[in-house]
Amino acid sequence: MADMKLPKQSENYSEWYTQVIQRAELADYAPVRGCMVIRPYGWALWENIQKDLNKRFKATGHENAQFPLFIPMSFFEKEKEHVEGFSPELAVVTHGGGTELEEPLVVRPTSETVIGYMYSKWIQSWRDLPVLINQWANVVRWEMRTRLFLRTMEFFWQEGHTAHATAEEAEEETLKILDVYTTFAREIAAVPVIPGLKSNSEKFAGAVRSYSIEAMMGDTKALQAGTSHNLGQNFAKAFEIQFVDQNNEMQHCWTTSWGLSTRFIGAIIMTHGDDQGLILPPRLAPVQIVIVPIFKDDEEKARVMPAADALRDNLEAADLRVKVDDRDNLRPGFKFNEWELRGVPLRIEIGPRDVESGNVMTARRDIPGRDGKQVMPQANAAAWAVDLLETIQHALYQRALNFRDAHIYQPTNREEFLKALDDGWAYAWWCEDTACETEIKEQTKATTRCIPLDQPDGETGTCIHCGKPARRKVYIARAY
Amino acid sequence: MADMKLPKQSENYSEWYTQVIQRAELADYAPVRGCMVIRPYGWALWENIQKDLNKRFKATGHENAQFPLFIPMSFFEKEKEHVEGFSPELAVVTHGGGTELEEPLVVRPTSETVIGYMYSKWIQSWRDLPVLINQWANVVRWEMRTRLFLRTMEFFWQEGHTAHATAEEAEEETLKILDVYTTFAREIAAVPVIPGLKSNSEKFAGAVRSYSIEAMMGDTKALQAGTSHNLGQNFAKAFEIQFVDQNNEMQHCWTTSWGLSTRFIGAIIMTHGDDQGLILPPRLAPVQIVIVPIFKDDEEKARVMPAADALRDNLEAADLRVKVDDRDNLRPGFKFNEWELRGVPLRIEIGPRDVESGNVMTARRDIPGRDGKQVMPQANAAAWAVDLLETIQHALYQRALNFRDAHIYQPTNREEFLKALDDGWAYAWWCEDTACETEIKEQTKATTRCIPLDQPDGETGTCIHCGKPARRKVYIARAY
Repeated sequence: MADMKLPKQSENYSEWYTQVIQRAELADYAPVRGCMVIRPYGWALWENIQKDLNKRFKATGHENAQFPLFIPMSFFEKEKEHVEGFSPELAVVTHGGGTELEEPLVVRPTSETVIGYMYSKWIQSWRDLPVLINQWANVVRWEMRTRLFLRTMEFFWQEGHTAHATAEEAEEETLKILDVYTTFAREIAAVPVIPGLKSNSEKFAGAVRSYSIEAMMGDTKALQAGTSHNLGQNFAKAFEIQFVDQNNEMQHCWTTSWGLSTRFIGAIIMTHGDDQGLILPPRLAPVQIVIVPIFKDDEEKARVMPAADALRDNLEAADLRVKVDDRDNLRPGFKFNEWELRGVPLRIEIGPRDVESGNVMTARRDIPGRDGKQVMPQANAAAWAVDLLETIQHALYQRALNFRDAHIYQPTNREEFLKALDDGWAYAWWCEDTACETEIKEQTKATTRCIPLDQPDGETGTCIHCGKPARRKVYIARAY
Repeated sequence: MADMKLPKQSENYSEWYTQVIQRAELADYAPVRGCMVIRPYGWALWENIQKDLNKRFKATGHENAQFPLFIPMSFFEKEKEHVEGFSPELAVVTHGGGTELEEPLVVRPTSETVIGYMYSKWIQSWRDLPVLINQWANVVRWEMRTRLFLRTMEFFWQEGHTAHATAEEAEEETLKILDVYTTFAREIAAVPVIPGLKSNSEKFAGAVRSYSIEAMMGDTKALQAGTSHNLGQNFAKAFEIQFVDQNNEMQHCWTTSWGLSTRFIGAIIMTHGDDQGLILPPRLAPVQIVIVPIFKDDEEKARVMPAADALRDNLEAADLRVKVDDRDNLRPGFKFNEWELRGVPLRIEIGPRDVESGNVMTARRDIPGRDGKQVMPQANAAAWAVDLLETIQHALYQRALNFRDAHIYQPTNREEFLKALDDGWAYAWWCEDTACETEIKEQTKATTRCIPLDQPDGETGTCIHCGKPARRKVYIARAY
């Protein structure tokens, strides 16, 4: 497949996205509509995401656990907004072991309810708080329009669920995790996200306040890439999560939940990819460096391969993830294209002359052609490669940031507002009224993405859509 | 809960098992019958199992991926034995997004079918082989009688699925993984398993040959702790997994599958635990060392805590997993009991006098009372602790091996056979006839566990049950 051209992003972004995923072997369609198979290359990317987030969750005091896939239908009815939000999306098991069940079981779309039930059993006293638990799990939401990674019926995520003694602690936790997501996205995935508050109509079903990180894709659409919810006492009251406080009085807990999913892989693809295919950020790339040996005959091969293998060992000793492409039925040019398609950040070419000279040629994935090529001394390869990968990591972030900022507009009138939504995002004063938001959506297909945490100091303005007084500025954009 | 006594193993082994899991906070019952919640302490144990197995799978050339939870019902009907084996255990989704589905979806009980379907799309040529993929996943089997970890409706496992060009390679793979499981069980979990072939009636539904590792629990019952199946061309034919070979001819692949599940946690509990609670093997224990500071007042506390924290830092720097129990509302004796219940292999006590003397007291979990206590110099704590944990690891294995071997009998007549099954396992000649096996099961409730790979050289005998000629010896036992 690698020798067929991908569609150009500028011609058909959506088709580019779907094809690059399948050709790069990140994922494939499963036989059940809307479900996907995550292939080894895609799953290795997800495992690298997991490793980094696990470190951050642990550093902030969280532990992993595992809650059940099935939730009694009745649990969903205990929190009014939650059931309204999720009912249309539920997959329901009605038969087990050949007989019809007395109470249907829901395949979890998210786990607040069942975890709330367990917390009510585990939490007795203020000494048991806070409870800080995360799980890595699959969840199912019955989606009508699905897309690989972005919106699939089954998807994979982590969902954190915490319980606290005070409202302040719950808010602090919610923002702490928003910060974990922001740092991960920017520093590890090189995705320049904007953290902020969701509007009332965009918040999680059952939350008091939802925060998200929002990213701009290569077609300028917005993608919600992670969410952190302050659930107040809503679920604690629905599931009787109570504790005896230090004054010996019974209190309801304050809970939070937060998640980041395989959707984030879609964000990486659409933030960095180009017409040649994927570009993966070095800190997450399953293969950071591919070594392509170049030889014409067996005699050359016998000279080149040991040098290629030695180079690999040298790089792997520096904890780099390296692959030698030793397939002997394919031409180097074919291999170059294939590894470009698969987004490997750095390529090293090594031929008979390089073996003699002690140098090899490197090619950066993020800078096509000659400009991205450099001669690297084999003797000092590991230090050189570590540096070059860091340079690529930062260059990817800077490029994405420049692209994003070049497509954020600050409209002051309707004409500018509509043009902003056609060309990118609008950053504008907004009244925060749900009716106004609904009108914007109906008229422009754009939605409020988030009210950023950083706001112009002490200023106020008038709503970009309805002209009413506005306290805060918001990002408005068409979104995935 | 930790201050209430556990039931003694000798009085009620089954109740001991259930209580120790809940009190040690490994797992709890979920609201849905037969499902469990794996709590942070239990999940950390599972994550350590995953880490070790992942290393071994990678070293043998396997990659992780993720296949879908839902499988069309029709897929199960393509392999005759498979559908017969699994039909009674299926959980079925009939409704999604508020409407009835045209074709019901099965929640995977195992993934041979859907993976076979995908492999038929991915595999074209001999160059694509072998395909060596593993997934860590949850699966669902509708069980009537469930027990925490041992048999739950939803459980967690890894399932490897491989495709090969020849029958020999498939058999080699099947045995290679059996060896991975055996080594993991013995060296990492300190569980002395016996690898062998399952009888025809005990093999996996759809396999040509199944192998397993079998472990003896503390009540002498057997537990199947991991399985590796040679599927021949059964699934390749059912799902048309074909490739063009080097002679340009179309061939069916030869496939394997193999799994080890959270059931293995049950094996660890019942291999090593005692009347005081869990005993976790150091190489898997989430907490390898607990430091209990001992002080009477704030003045003593101010002297002891910095020393306890310094000791922890020292041990953690040697990659040990350490916890300081700094709860100030509990007595040291209560903490000792609690960490014994939770199976932490090594305890370190540090009080004001220890701070001065430069020594601390260590207590081995596997040797109760004074015999397990040793004075350890703080200055050399890390090297000392590493050694001591290795000693404990080996002692646990040796003890379990001695126990097992003391409860394996080689009966030569019916009376000895029945007595062997009451007191432990029988190791005896067997005719390998299914009708004979059924009779044994009906009369004794024991089943053939495995035909071990190591057999008496060149010998033959007569079947312990029916007296017919027998080629191989087998283990027969009552089992979980």
